[in-house]
Amino acid sequence: MTYQDTISISTHATGAMNDLTHGVQAIVAQSRIETGLVHVFNVGSTASIVAMEFESGLVADLPRELDRLLPPGRHYNHEAAWHDGNGHSHLQASMLGPGLTVPVKAGKLVLGTWQQICHLECDVRPRQRTIVVTVLGD
Amino acid sequence: MTYQDTISISTHATGAMNDLTHGVQAIVAQSRIETGLVHVFNVGSTASIVAMEFESGLVADLPRELDRLLPPGRHYNHEAAWHDGNGHSHLQASMLGPGLTVPVKAGKLVLGTWQQICHLECDVRPRQRTIVVTVLGD
Amino acid sequence: MTYQDTISISTHATGAMNDLTHGVQAIVAQSRIETGLVHVFNVGSTASIVAMEFESGLVADLPRELDRLLPPGRHYNHEAAWHDGNGHSHLQASMLGPGLTVPVKAGKLVLGTWQQICHLECDVRPRQRTIVVTVLGD
Repeated sequence: MTYQDTISISTHATGAMNDLTHGVQAIVAQSRIETGLVHVFNVGSTASIVAMEFESGLVADLPRELDRLLPPGRHYNHEAAWHDGNGHSHLQASMLGPGLTVPVKAGKLVLGTWQQICHLECDVRPRQRTIVVTVLGD
Repeated sequence: MTYQDTISISTHATGAMNDLTHGVQAIVAQSRIETGLVHVFNVGSTASIVAMEFESGLVADLPRELDRLLPPGRHYNHEAAWHDGNGHSHLQASMLGPGLTVPVKAGKLVLGTWQQICHLECDVRPRQRTIVVTVLGD
Repeated sequence: MTYQDTISISTHATGAMNDLTHGVQAIVAQSRIETGLVHVFNVGSTASIVAMEFESGLVADLPRELDRLLPPGRHYNHEAAWHDGNGHSHLQASMLGPGLTVPVKAGKLVLGTWQQICHLECDVRPRQRTIVVTVLGD
C-alpha cells in the first residue's frame, strides 16, 4: 500500500524551525498503514528535514552552528551566477539533506520521546514550503 | 511485502561505533524479500546510523572529527534547559541523521566491499539502543 | 510493486559531480510506478548522492567547502592501515551519506525546479561508480 499527501508551511525567516511530527502522524493515521515507512521530503533546495529534539535551545543551536560551519557572507561561486546571497543556504541544505524516513509500527511513528521530525529553513527570506509525505507498507 | 524487526545494542561510551551489517542482513534473510529496500533507524536523538568502512582507523576518525566540528564544552543553548552536557551530541546526531536506507537485491544487501552499516553513539554516556529495521519489497 | 535498475558513471576526478536526475526519471518511467518513492544509492564508501541545484557555482562550492571542513592532508588514522590518502574521502562521504530518497507522484520525481539528484565523487582518483535505483509504490 502507498499513501501520499502534502503539508504546507510558511517559514518566517532564515533558521526558522517547524515541528512536523503531528502533521506526519496524522497522514500516517489517514493512510491506515500499520507497518512500514514514512518519508518526509522538502521540495526545494534551500531547506531540510532533520530529526531533532524540538526544544528552544536546540532550535537556536542548530541554525547557528550551521552558520558557523558554512557561513553566510563568504565568497561562494553560486553568487556569481545568482547574486541572491544564499550560497550558504544551498550548501547547508545539501549537507543536511532534504528528507527523512521514519519507521511506522502499529500505525504510529517510531520515534524517541525527544526525537521529532523538524523542518529547517536555510534560505535568507521567508518561504512557502511544500513537504511531501509518502507512506509505504501494509 | 513489509517486514520489521529490531536490533538491541549497548554502547560503551561516547563515540563508540558498532557494525550492524550482519544483523541487518539476517533480518533481510528472515523477511524473504528478494528485491527492495531495507531501512535502519536509531530510536532516540543522540545517535546515528552511517555508511562507513568499519575499520579501526575510521572508527577513531569519525567521532574525533565530529568533535572538532561540533565540539563538546562549547556553550549550547540546549544546556540552559537540560544541563546534561550533551548539546553537541544532539547536533552531531541531527547532522549525520538517524537512519540509512540500503538496496536489497537477490535477498542480499547491496553494499561495497568496504561499506558497512554502522551505529555511532554521540551521547556522553553508555546507552541501550534500539534500532528498528524495516524491509520493503517483493 | 518494486523495480530496480542501475546507473553506471565514470567520475573524472575528486570533487566531480554528475547530475543523475534524468537517468533516475527514466528508471521511474520504466517502472510504471505512479505513486511512491525512488531511492538512489552509491555502492562504495567514498562517494555520495546529494540533492542540490546542479549549476556550475555550487558544483565548485560543495567539494571545496567539504575539503575545508574535512581537509585532505590531515592525519587520519585511516591512513595508518591503508596509506591511500583518502581518509578525508571516507569521512566526507559518510557525513553526506550514500543515498537519497525522492517522492514519485503521477509517475514523475517530485523535485523543486532547482533541485537535482547529484553524485559527488569524494575519492582521490577517477572511479567507475554503480548507482542502484530502487522504485517502490503503486
